[in-house]
Formats: sequence, C-alpha cells, structure tokens
Amino acid sequence: MSLLIKNGRIITAADDYVADIFIEGERIAVIGKELSIPAGETIDAEGMLVMPGGIDPHVHLDMPFMGTFSSDNYETGTRAALHGGTTMVIDFILQKQGAPLKAALEEWRGRSNGNCLCDYSFHMAVTDFNDSTRQEIKTMIEQEGITSFKTFMAYKGALMIDDRQMTALMQEVKKQGGMVTVHATNGDMIDYLVAKHKAEGKLSPLYHYLSQPEVTEAEASGRFADIANYTGCPGYIVHMTCEGALHAVRNATRRNQHVFVETCIQYLLLDASLYEQDFDGAKWVMSPPLRQQKDQDTLWAGINQGLVNVVATDHCPFKWEQKLMGKDDFSRIPNGHPAIEHRMELLYSEGVHKGRITLNKYVEVASTNPAKIFGMFPRKGTIAVNSDADIIILDPNAQHTITAEGHHMNVDYSAYEGWELTGKIKTVLLRGKVAINNGECPLEKGYGQFIKRHKLSGKI
Amino acid sequence: MSLLIKNGRIITAADDYVADIFIEGERIAVIGKELSIPAGETIDAEGMLVMPGGIDPHVHLDMPFMGTFSSDNYETGTRAALHGGTTMVIDFILQKQGAPLKAALEEWRGRSNGNCLCDYSFHMAVTDFNDSTRQEIKTMIEQEGITSFKTFMAYKGALMIDDRQMTALMQEVKKQGGMVTVHATNGDMIDYLVAKHKAEGKLSPLYHYLSQPEVTEAEASGRFADIANYTGCPGYIVHMTCEGALHAVRNATRRNQHVFVETCIQYLLLDASLYEQDFDGAKWVMSPPLRQQKDQDTLWAGINQGLVNVVATDHCPFKWEQKLMGKDDFSRIPNGHPAIEHRMELLYSEGVHKGRITLNKYVEVASTNPAKIFGMFPRKGTIAVNSDADIIILDPNAQHTITAEGHHMNVDYSAYEGWELTGKIKTVLLRGKVAINNGECPLEKGYGQFIKRHKLSGKI
Amino acid sequence: MSLLIKNGRIITAADDYVADIFIEGERIAVIGKELSIPAGETIDAEGMLVMPGGIDPHVHLDMPFMGTFSSDNYETGTRAALHGGTTMVIDFILQKQGAPLKAALEEWRGRSNGNCLCDYSFHMAVTDFNDSTRQEIKTMIEQEGITSFKTFMAYKGALMIDDRQMTALMQEVKKQGGMVTVHATNGDMIDYLVAKHKAEGKLSPLYHYLSQPEVTEAEASGRFADIANYTGCPGYIVHMTCEGALHAVRNATRRNQHVFVETCIQYLLLDASLYEQDFDGAKWVMSPPLRQQKDQDTLWAGINQGLVNVVATDHCPFKWEQKLMGKDDFSRIPNGHPAIEHRMELLYSEGVHKGRITLNKYVEVASTNPAKIFGMFPRKGTIAVNSDADIIILDPNAQHTITAEGHHMNVDYSAYEGWELTGKIKTVLLRGKVAINNGECPLEKGYGQFIKRHKLSGKI
Amino acid sequence: MSLLIKNGRIITAADDYVADIFIEGERIAVIGKELSIPAGETIDAEGMLVMPGGIDPHVHLDMPFMGTFSSDNYETGTRAALHGGTTMVIDFILQKQGAPLKAALEEWRGRSNGNCLCDYSFHMAVTDFNDSTRQEIKTMIEQEGITSFKTFMAYKGALMIDDRQMTALMQEVKKQGGMVTVHATNGDMIDYLVAKHKAEGKLSPLYHYLSQPEVTEAEASGRFADIANYTGCPGYIVHMTCEGALHAVRNATRRNQHVFVETCIQYLLLDASLYEQDFDGAKWVMSPPLRQQKDQDTLWAGINQGLVNVVATDHCPFKWEQKLMGKDDFSRIPNGHPAIEHRMELLYSEGVHKGRITLNKYVEVASTNPAKIFGMFPRKGTIAVNSDADIIILDPNAQHTITAEGHHMNVDYSAYEGWELTGKIKTVLLRGKVAINNGECPLEKGYGQFIKRHKLSGKI
Repeated sequence: MSLLIKNGRIITAADDYVADIFIEGERIAVIGKELSIPAGETIDAEGMLVMPGGIDPHVHLDMPFMGTFSSDNYETGTRAALHGGTTMVIDFILQKQGAPLKAALEEWRGRSNGNCLCDYSFHMAVTDFNDSTRQEIKTMIEQEGITSFKTFMAYKGALMIDDRQMTALMQEVKKQGGMVTVHATNGDMIDYLVAKHKAEGKLSPLYHYLSQPEVTEAEASGRFADIANYTGCPGYIVHMTCEGALHAVRNATRRNQHVFVETCIQYLLLDASLYEQDFDGAKWVMSPPLRQQKDQDTLWAGINQGLVNVVATDHCPFKWEQKLMGKDDFSRIPNGHPAIEHRMELLYSEGVHKGRITLNKYVEVASTNPAKIFGMFPRKGTIAVNSDADIIILDPNAQHTITAEGHHMNVDYSAYEGWELTGKIKTVLLRGKVAINNGECPLEKGYGQFIKRHKLSGKI
Repeated sequence: MSLLIKNGRIITAADDYVADIFIEGERIAVIGKELSIPAGETIDAEGMLVMPGGIDPHVHLDMPFMGTFSSDNYETGTRAALHGGTTMVIDFILQKQGAPLKAALEEWRGRSNGNCLCDYSFHMAVTDFNDSTRQEIKTMIEQEGITSFKTFMAYKGALMIDDRQMTALMQEVKKQGGMVTVHATNGDMIDYLVAKHKAEGKLSPLYHYLSQPEVTEAEASGRFADIANYTGCPGYIVHMTCEGALHAVRNATRRNQHVFVETCIQYLLLDASLYEQDFDGAKWVMSPPLRQQKDQDTLWAGINQGLVNVVATDHCPFKWEQKLMGKDDFSRIPNGHPAIEHRMELLYSEGVHKGRITLNKYVEVASTNPAKIFGMFPRKGTIAVNSDADIIILDPNAQHTITAEGHHMNVDYSAYEGWELTGKIKTVLLRGKVAINNGECPLEKGYGQFIKRHKLSGKI
Repeated sequence: MSLLIKNGRIITAADDYVADIFIEGERIAVIGKELSIPAGETIDAEGMLVMPGGIDPHVHLDMPFMGTFSSDNYETGTRAALHGGTTMVIDFILQKQGAPLKAALEEWRGRSNGNCLCDYSFHMAVTDFNDSTRQEIKTMIEQEGITSFKTFMAYKGALMIDDRQMTALMQEVKKQGGMVTVHATNGDMIDYLVAKHKAEGKLSPLYHYLSQPEVTEAEASGRFADIANYTGCPGYIVHMTCEGALHAVRNATRRNQHVFVETCIQYLLLDASLYEQDFDGAKWVMSPPLRQQKDQDTLWAGINQGLVNVVATDHCPFKWEQKLMGKDDFSRIPNGHPAIEHRMELLYSEGVHKGRITLNKYVEVASTNPAKIFGMFPRKGTIAVNSDADIIILDPNAQHTITAEGHHMNVDYSAYEGWELTGKIKTVLLRGKVAINNGECPLEKGYGQFIKRHKLSGKI
Repeated sequence: MSLLIKNGRIITAADDYVADIFIEGERIAVIGKELSIPAGETIDAEGMLVMPGGIDPHVHLDMPFMGTFSSDNYETGTRAALHGGTTMVIDFILQKQGAPLKAALEEWRGRSNGNCLCDYSFHMAVTDFNDSTRQEIKTMIEQEGITSFKTFMAYKGALMIDDRQMTALMQEVKKQGGMVTVHATNGDMIDYLVAKHKAEGKLSPLYHYLSQPEVTEAEASGRFADIANYTGCPGYIVHMTCEGALHAVRNATRRNQHVFVETCIQYLLLDASLYEQDFDGAKWVMSPPLRQQKDQDTLWAGINQGLVNVVATDHCPFKWEQKLMGKDDFSRIPNGHPAIEHRMELLYSEGVHKGRITLNKYVEVASTNPAKIFGMFPRKGTIAVNSDADIIILDPNAQHTITAEGHHMNVDYSAYEGWELTGKIKTVLLRGKVAINNGECPLEKGYGQFIKRHKLSGKI
C-alpha cells in the first residue's frame, strides 16, 4: 500500500515548503521535490496546506458523569474527530475512589477497545492517591504506556484530591518519569458558591458561571504551580480560561519554573455573555465556564508568548435532553460542550486566517506540542520521514458554515451554529489510509489504535 | 552537483528521525528512508546528528571600534564560523551620526563583499534617526533586504539614540514591516560609573564589570519593552545577560506583549568571577559584562520557558595586544570576545549533552529561530525540501578540547581555553557544498552570499 | 488617684515631644509643658522615652495543645508581659469542632477570668464553620466584643477549615463588621511532609523545619488573600515569616487589595540555622518555623514599606520537659517559644537602636496598629487625652542581658539566652497604676480587664 | 498671647479624642480634659474636628513658566492656602541650567521674602548637576535647610537631567542626608508625541493628554526607582497619576525598596473625559494629565495600602487669558490648575465623608507625612505639645459649593466649579494666631515664615 501527495504546501511546527510526500504503508517514507515514485494512490494537493493530523489531548467520550454518559461514544466521537482533521485523541480514565487504577483502565478499555476510528490514548485521572496507588504509577508508565496523570482540584468527594495527595503523587510521578496534569479550580470555593446560589433560588445557567469566578481558577493554578515547583514534577494545566490563571504561570517563570498550559478552542473564541440568554446558555455550561474578552486576549497572547502550549477541546457533549436535566437547577446540567470536530477548522479560520497566529504556531499548538508533551513524538505530531502518515489537507480558501445538521458528533445542537469559517479540511489520512475524503469517512471502527506513550521529561 | 547524506539522525526545531538527505545543487531535494538516488558524493552519517547549519545573528567582523578593528575580518571570521558549524551570520552596519544609512551600508559592503565564506546579512544600526533617515527605512527593507534595525541605549555621543528617536524609529519600522533590536543598557548610568571609577583610580577590568551593574540592563530592557508596547513594533533584545532583564520581559507578558530575547553563549556558561584575576579578565571584557550564577540559571530556564529565543555570540574578537590598550584603564579595553567558532559545540555539550535542553530546542535557538525572527526562513534555519542545504553533521560522542592553538579565529587567546567538550562537528555543508570536512575548509572566500531578508511580523 | 510623669520624651505612632503627662484615675487627663498639677505620685522621666504600653495581639496562655498546656497561665504570662512593657494581650479561644463558639468562650473564661494582670482580649478561632456557627458571629461581635476570627489553613482534623468554610465565614464576618485572621500554611502539604520524614526516620527538630518549607506559607498566604479579595472581607495574616508570603501580599496590592500582615519578633531576629544543633533546636520549634536571612530582610523592609503592620510574639512557651515529649519525634515537640516578655525590648534594641526603624514606627507596630486593627483604639495603643494610661518608660541607654534565670515567664530556658540589649523598660503603668517599677510588679492577679472590642472596617 | 480651643474632637495621624488645647504664643502648651487655664481667646469647637493644618508640599507660586508666571503670587497663593486649611506649603526653586543653585535660591527669595501669609519652604530643583553643583548640595542641606532636591525626567533642554546626572545627584544627596524627588515622565517620548501631534495638525487640549500616555509615567517611575535602589538614596515621586506608575513602585517593594509616593487631589477625583470638551479642557491641562477611573481606584487603594503617602496639589494656576496662549496649540497652554485652596476640603468630603479613608489617614496624607518626609516634623504636621499651633477646625456637617466667584486664588475660573462638598473649614490657626475665621483672613503678608528643614533618612 502506498500513497503519494503531490505539490502540497507542507507545514509543520517548524517548516513551510512545497513538496511531495510518499507514504509507504502507515508511515511517511520520502519527502521531496517532484517525486516520481509509483504509488498506489495519488492525491493532488496543489494550492492546499498539508499538515500533521490534529491531536486533541483533552476529550471525554462515553464518559459516565453526573448520572449520564457523554453522548459521543468512542465510535461517533473519533469519527467526528477525523471529520475535523483530528487523527488522535487523548481521553481520560477516572479512577474510582477506593479502587485501583487498573480497574478503571479495564473499565475504560471495555468501552473503547475496538470502537475507535482515530488513534487514541488515555490520561489516568488519579482520584485517590495512596500507598497502593503509588505502586501502580510505575506500571502505568512502563507497562501500559500511560504517562500522564490527571488530577482534579475540584469535585470534592468524587474526583478531587487534596494537596497532600497532590504532593505525594507528584513526587512519585516525577520519580517514574511521568507528568501530572490538573483541572485547576478551587473546588471548595465553587462548592460553596453553588450551594449558596441554590439556596438563594438562583438556578439558571448564569449561576453556573457565577459559581466559578476567575479567582477559583487563578488560585488553584498558582497552587498547582507551587506544588509542582516544590516537587520538581513536570506539570500541565488543562483547559486554562483566564488572565488570572495565566498570570499565575507567568509569576512562576520568575523562579525559573516551566508549567505547560493548555487552553481550549472555546476559551479563545466564546465569552460569558452567552450565559445571559436564559436556559439556552446551558449549551455552554462547562467547567471552567467561558470568560471575558480580556481573557481571550491574554490566551491568544499567551500562545504567541510561548506560554500557552496546546489548544484542545475538552470535548464532552451532551444532547439537549441531557442538558435539560438541569432545567431547574444549573448544578444538574451536565458539564461540557461538543467541539472535537471543529477545533482544527475554528483555530485555522480564527487564528491563522485572521492573522493572530502563524501557520507554524497552528501546527505546534494543535498537533506537535501535544505529541511532544505527552510522549507520542516523533511517531505523531509532525510530517517527517518515519512518522505515522497522519496528515490533513486543508483548502485555505474554502468557506463553510458550522451547523448541527452538518456535523458528525452525536449531539443535536451546535455550540458554534452559523459560524462561517474560511479554510476547510478536504482530506485526512490516518497511518497512511484515507480517513476522510470530501466529507466521507471510509474507515471502520476499530481502525483506531491505542498508542503507548513514552516517558516524559517536562522538556520539549 | 548532488550529494547524499545517508543514515543520519536528522534533527530540526520540530523533528527527530533517521533518514537520508539528497541534495541537488544548493538545495535539499529529497528526504527519505534508504534513498537510492545516485549522487555525486555520499556521506555516511550513521550514528551522527544531522542538523541545520547554525545561524549566529550577532557578530561583529572587521568592525571599527574604540580606535581599532575587531580582529576577525570577513574572511577569517566566516571561516571560523564554518569550522564551528555556523553557516550564516548577521553582522552589524553602524550608521555614522549625521550620515545616511546608505553610506554606512556601502562602507560595510566595501569590507565584506567578496570576502565571506559563509552566508551573511546585516542588521542596520540606526544611530541617528531623523526625517531623512526615516525615508531610508523603507528602502533598506524593500530594496536591500535589511529588515532589522539595531539601536543602542548606551554609547552616548557615538551610537546611542534617545527615547524620542527610539519611539519615532519604532513607529516607522513597524509601518514598513521591520523589527527593532536593541543593546539595552542605560548608557547614562554606565557613563557615570565609568567616569566615577576612573576618577577614583579604579582601573582594572573588574571595574568594567562594576560599571555596568545588573540594574543598567534591567532598566533599559524594561524601557525598551515599554516603548515597543506603546508603538506596537516588534522588538528584540540582543545579548541579554541577567535575571533583572528577563524579569522585565516576563512582566511585559502580563500586558500581552511579546518581546524576543537573545542571549549569548558566554552568558550561559561564564560568570563574573573571571574579572577578579587582574588584567587577565580583559579577555572577557565585553558589554554587557558576564554576570552571576543566578543569571545563568534564569537564562537556561528562559530558554525552556520559551522566553529566550536565540543563543548568539556577539563575537567581537581582539588580539591580546589590542586588549592591552586598556592595560591601565579598563575603559580603553576593546569590548568583545571570540566565540563565533565555539557557539554550536559549547551549546551542544553544555546544553544538550548535560540535559539542560532538548535537541529540538538546540536547533531552535541556534538556527531556526534566528532564521524566522530575522526573515531568512524557510530558506535558512531548517532541514527541509527546498531549503538551502546548510547542514552540520555532529558526532555526539566525540570529545575534544578548546585551545587557542587549535581554533581558527584570528585571535591569540581563547576565552574557553581548556574546556573539554562532548560532541564534535565533523562535516559542514553550505548550500550543498562541503564547507568543512574533518577540520579542513575547502571553500574560498567569496563563496558566502549576502542573503536578502523578507519583512517581519513579529510572530513566528 | 493621680499620677504625674515629668519631662519624658513622649513617643506615639505619630508624635515625638517632651512634656508632662497627668493621669487621673485610669486615664490620661492632661499633657503639657511643665505641668504643675498636684498629683498623688510623680515620676521623673527626664531622658526617658515615654510610650504607649505594648499590645501583643498574638499569645497563647494556658492553652491545651498537643496533649499538654502552654506553660504560662494567665497569671504568669500576663505578669511577664508587664515586665516586658506589654500592657495588653490578645489570646486565642479555640472552638472545638462540633461545638459552638460559646462553649469555647466559656471554657477560656474559666481559665482566664480573675487571673490576668494585664488587660486582654480574645480572638475567636473558628475551627468548624456551619449554619449554627454562622449565627454566633454576630453575637460574638456585638455582645461579646470579640471582633476577630482566627482561622487555620493547617492542622487538618483539629483546627483547619477548608476553603468552603473560609469563603462562607468571610462573607458572614464582613457582613457583621469583623475581620478574619489566618494561620496561613498549607496543612495538607505539611501533613504529607511530616509523615514522609517520619516514615524515613528523620525525626530531629531539623525536620520540623524541613516539613514546613517556604512554599507552604507562600501558597496559603496567596490563597487567603484571594478569598479575602473575592469576599471583600478584611483579612489579617498572623506570624508571617518569609519572602514568598510577603510577595503574595505585594502581588495582591496590584488588584487594589489591602491585607494586614503581622510578623513576630523571632522571625525578624532568628534564623533556621538554630535547627541544626541537634535536639537543642526544639527550643525554637514553632509553626511556621524560623527562616533565612533573606526573609528577615524582607520583613524589616516590609515594616518600612507599610506592608507589615504588626510585630507580635505568638508566645506559646513550653518547659524543657514538655519539649522532651518530642525527643524522638519532632512532630511531638510542643510548638511555640517564650517571647511575651522580650518583644518590646528586643524590637527596641534591634530595631530602633540599630537604626532599622524609627521610634514612631516602633510604637506603631508594637502598640498602635494592633489597637486600631483589632478595635481597641483610641482607648488603647496611644498616649492621648482620655486614653487608658497604659504607659512604658524606657531608658534608651540602659544595657542588659536576657537570661532564663532573670526572666519572669514560667519556662526554664530562654530562646534569647545571652542576648545583650540596649534600652530597658524601667516603669510600666496600666490604667494609671504602676504595674512595673524597676523590676517589681506590685499588681495582683485579677487587675487585668477583659477589653471589649468594637467593629472593624479594615481601614486604619 | 494665649488661646484655648474647647471641646473639639482632636484628630492627628494617630489619635482621635475630645479635649481642650491650650496655646501659648506660637506653640501648643497643654492638651487636656476640661482645661481651665485662662486664655486671651477661647474658641468653642464642640462638634468640630480639630486637626493639624494642612501641608501642601507641591505648589508653584509666582513661577516663571512657558513665558508667563503662575497667577498666584506668594501673597495671593498663601492666603488662598490658609482659606482652605493649608498652613504650610513647599514651593519649588528652579536652578537655571549653567547657573548655581544659590543664584536660583536668591531669585526665589526675591519673589517670596516678606510676601507669604502661611509658612513655607522650598524644594531645590536641580536642572544641571555637575561638579560645582555637587558642592552646593551640602550647603543647601546644612545651611539653608533645604533638604529635598527635585528632578525632572521631562522638559529636555530646560529642566530635564539625564540618568547620568540623576545617578550622580542621588549619590551626593544620599551622602549629605537629603532626598531626591522626581517629576517622573519620559520627556523624550513626550517630546516626540507632542511634535508628532503638532505636525499632524492635532492641536486641541485632548492632544496634550494623548502626548503623555500612561507608559511615559510608568516607565520613568520605574527608572527612577531603579536608580534610587542602586544608589540607596531616599526617593519620592511627585504627582503620581496612574496604575502603571504605582505598579512600578509595587514591583520595587519586591527588592525591599521603599519609594515615597505623592499623588494630587485632582488625580484622585477627575478624569481625562474632561479633555474631550474642546478648548475648555485647557482648564485641566497639566503634566502629567488626568487619567482614567482605573487610575483613581488604584491611587485611593494605594493610600490605604500605605504605598501612596501624600496628597498634594501641584497648584500652578493660570488665568484664562494665559491659558488662551495655547488656543491654537495645546503645547503652548500653560500647564497647571488651581487647587491650593480646595485640597483639604475636597479630600475630606470625597475621602473621609464618603468612607474611602479614615480620619487618621486624612491627617496623615495631608499633613503629617509631608512634615515627616520633608523634615519639618515634629514642629509641623501634628497637634502635640511644643508643636506649632497650626490648627484647622472643620465642621464635618457643613455643606458648601465650590465656585470661582467664591474662591480666593488669583484665577478667574475654578477647576471644581459647582462641586458640592460636605465638611467646611471654619477656623485656621497659624502659629497660634487666627489666620482664618469664618472666611476672613486677618493676617498680613509677611506673617508666613520660611521653615528650615532637617536632614532626611528616608524612614518615617
């Protein structure tokens, strides 16, 4: 099996040139000018941007949460990802408090195995760190290829670990060569505000937003950075939304520390005014919530400053009937929004096309950095000889409109309904195979592979 | 003319893979696995690191300064650069106050034309910005391909411009698509301290150091960032040495600003204790001077934080007899030290080999970022199809020792005498031609080309 | 009853003049030049400094802690306070988790009532904030005159409240006109480090210090400031020891917040090298522990910057046999050291005499600010007409040496053994009565009154 | 001559009590309850606030500037000051570049001697620091009692000194026991923007504002703090207006530095929207210009944080016909506004009455701090035995309206026309003599004395 992409403008995190790419089997074999190698299939990419497939390191598929499951399962979610140019995702396993990590891994494998269309990995969310969990860290890293450990500073009683566990976990993870990632919001403050708003009869989606003020995220981000600095453990803050939190990371640079930062596409593009529209705001009920214009500005700047390293989605869709569980109580609205399919095109249109970031930066934050930070590089995250042929071909001039009707995610509304974008992904390859071709996905579920990841140094 | 490099481990700012590189004429044509293209010459790079040629964006060759000339002319300096794996340099033209930029350009061309072995460009140092200079900015950028304008906040009466000129220059440079770079030290404070120390009979090299305390650099760096932020002009601070200055840039990130930062290899590796050895300290009399261990730490951290973007040299060598001009007066010691030949190997040995930075980061700060920031990319700064075949082949295990006897710079002492390094550059290609092979340089002077640079956006 | 102090140099937080003070009953009636009012008693204060009695807002007398009681009871402790020029103290009541504030108040009254020699008040430590505690806040403020509420971010399971309770408490306290004070250290991190050190067999006093690194205090101080800022509640950080914590307060000024800061005399004068002397270091086992020279420097600077407002003691003495409880386990060493008697003279000698602070600043941080911040002003904390005649007369030239033998605290060692001080308090008046006269204390226990405090605005 | 003030509520920077004040000659002799000392005159102050006379450390009377003179001479200006409760002012002597300080002192004495009604001193503005000026610093401090030296970082060619002179001056002033104060704006940037706006035909008062953006002040404030820190010289920033500048001082606290900060009443109360009204905005053309609401907020907060120490006026009035000099060119509008008469009442009404600051803080920033910082304390700045009887009696409930018609300054418009205030100064004493009594000023010119000031330590 071989495939030749002709005449495309190839963009990586570092490069920008016109050439042909010859793919043999699953991997890139040759890149060159006017290659005349015979190929099973040839794609003409003249005038197109040819880039590494997107990597979304923050998705939640088929996830049990708030009494229901996120509405995309591993099949629908990973197919939608491919439609949007994302060829690999990292999902989250949630340890059950009191149970071993291994049990959670098995449960998640039960739902994911054989169901994915794109490649995938898992972060292991450690919700109960103790002496027996400690033993499992090494196993996860060395045997299972799961090298990143998610923590929650919120959701007390369910997912949250306290700072004692955080410190202990970090010391072990550092020792074993992994990384700790964090949902950095002050759960106690949020719990208090949620309860207070409910007691006062303030029940609309707006109060979801007002129960998670900027300070709850800024505080926890700073605290996480403090503990990471003390332990020396590589740290990564997921879904950062706001200036206060980025300032915490900026302050940490003064002591020569480096903390990785991920934001999500929605925090760059949407703001909290969406919560003012009665229950319709439930579409964007997620944690942390959308913020203000100033926060969007600081996150875009952070990307160019090199301080925001990744743009993900925190994809966690719920159908409208699920959202309606919280009709009379914002705290019962399932948290999350559908975005897995739109990240790459939104970021291209709003980021590159509008001149906020360069093409190289686009690839860096959407693909290469996730691959490097989380240990799939150089197999994933770039266009280079020997790398997996995970490639997107994007027409920079094509215009299109996002609609719920047109998307492939298993959710009956769109968080970006009516957005008009410039730049459309025409073709997607996954390990050398055409995964998307003009809106069609010829792959079957099960094509997607679990990718074992290597140890992490915290340096990229 | 063609050349094939076999089996090397190819490292770019983004990538890391084993492949063959086929070079046709001056440029890279094909990169692939086990290429069997017939080539005029074949190099076996098994076990070697194959990387883009180094770009040193801060050198001073044959420069009139302090009543003498830096001792490397364009021939000796660029040959030494090649020996050390640097395939392109950016030198500085100094406008004479009262005279046009064009006159300075011609003077510099007179010394450089036909004399270079490696490729080169110039920064234009604007030392007198006025209405007629203003006209020339556009010409420099659009016709001459000189897109970066160096400013001095020190050397009043010779090179320094005041903040009025700085603001005006920045507004014009921004308008025309260029960038302003800066020697950011408070010249007035330094002039005062120099005069004071001299008046007190404090005349040894140590007082060179004590006349340029950290505050002089921290202050000016902050001031430059302030003006850049106000004008919106892309800014770049050359030869940053210290924590205070980097803090100024870190503070600037809070207002969503991005200022590029260059440090030099000596500021990462040497410290001010060298000035305590009587007149021998003159070897390291440069401006700014060497600093402390804390400053080295913060600069290494800054590289990994993404805040320090470039490692250059400020190569400006003087022979010992020239240094002796200041035997009895530190202020007459010609400023500068020889480093053009050692940057790439020092940074590899002390940075990569010792685990402070990754291989990708090494290429990024030593080659790719200079190329991108200054507008030679993608022709320079990477290993990719269509890029100039400026390539170094480094043996990561070879050990060697720096000596004045063994170096190729036209200076009779070494600033790194006796340093034992791991990692030796064996072969250097410049535009497809072997420039260095096991210590020999087969090129003739004049091979080096002046590279026109394109407009700059301040985003990379 | 009347008393006339002649010719003293009177110092308040604002003033500095030579005059006579006429006291009628408990209060100051007249201040003037060469007063010739007939008085029951006359004291010649020529050449002496006449200042307001010290107020130590942080003492623990007869306190149940770690299975024992602090060794000074209300009698011995308040007598020692008077010997050292402190005429009022604020002690701490500790709520029992699960029990009402009122119960704790009664328990503390049981130990203190009728036993004090100097005047006193209590902070109420809220260790369990819930709906029923909430009701009591108003009562404490309005009926009991207890307007400051202490919180612990450490000692989980015993004293610590979580951030949920902290936020809720602050909202209520702000509403009722009180202030929240805090022991700001990250209890979870400390608990982890204590357990880890013990598990590793690291049991000497040094590990007490190493279990409470600077980050634990810096982090918690920032978090407390964050919550205070969100709630708008006046906040006060007790016993600040380090640069990191003061930086947190400095950062908070950027958002226009003001947090009051107390340090203690030991953190200004002693450092952690004392822990290196085997078990003898147990004398200074306290929480937070002593820090470094850099921390002393920043605290002295903070006083002059107006950011450190109070110098207290956290007096909590234990006899050597009590300290020996932790002979084989640092975590069982009762925390605290004896200082109630020495604060005023140490701060005079090391602060004023050595030129670090002015006389006005001395009175401000040792007496006036505590009175204002905690609501005893203008009755306490100054020398002014109508104020209580709580006055110290200090001989600025007298020299003396601190010894365990010579002190009046009920503890068999001195934390300042052999310190030679300049400046000795000769006479102390409490509400117009001679409390100390050349080393004798003519008062009986029970003379000290409980002082009801008024509401607090957070502005002074 | 004696005078008795009965039953007033006496407020100092530290105190708050009800008592009688007995004045003998020029000084306060006795303060006490129900004094029955026979007095030449008795004032009933029941229900009134009795406070130290205001000290305005920043006024420009009869000052040659921009081709004219400020319209209040020493007589009209100091009389207006008294009407508004200010009993002492510090004016500025401007050295002529090339001439000695002594010559300027004599020139200013020529205009002021015998003409003042309130007490006064001078700051010496050093506009040309050189070896001969250096000699004069000691003389000024020790013989003339002029201990503060004003510098300008703007007005190049007229008043500005460069950083070389600044550093040199600071080293000398520190050595001799004085303080350096600064007009901290980047003159070069401003000169450029003024010229640019003029060249573009932008000539209205709005462009005065736009020629001095926040960065020009923030930058210079930081630079001044840097040099002060390096030299160790006590520093004081006059007329601070904005957040950026206060942030510079806040940052400086991190290195344990303390810089005194003065703001002016207008920067607390007015904003730049006043410049939008065509030429009427000329009334508020001053340097630095008015700023934004965020800046007012940060200055009020700065007062309560202890970081803003003084509220002055920068009183420098010009009549409307003088302002008209700049009708067609904002750069020719004489800079300054009339405020000497209103500071105390505006600050009371907007600060104390509206609850932004306490009464003690009011006295501190309006009187005591200026006295302490500049070396007139304890003679001035407080109500205490032996202090000059400079006293204001303020009716806290009286309401009144500011009008040009009603004020006493020699200027034909009011910058606060129609402002309705609560709190009116009824009586003013200067050195024991009634200076103002219900709107009448019985003093003759010449009553005001020149006050020699003592050496300064930079600590208060």
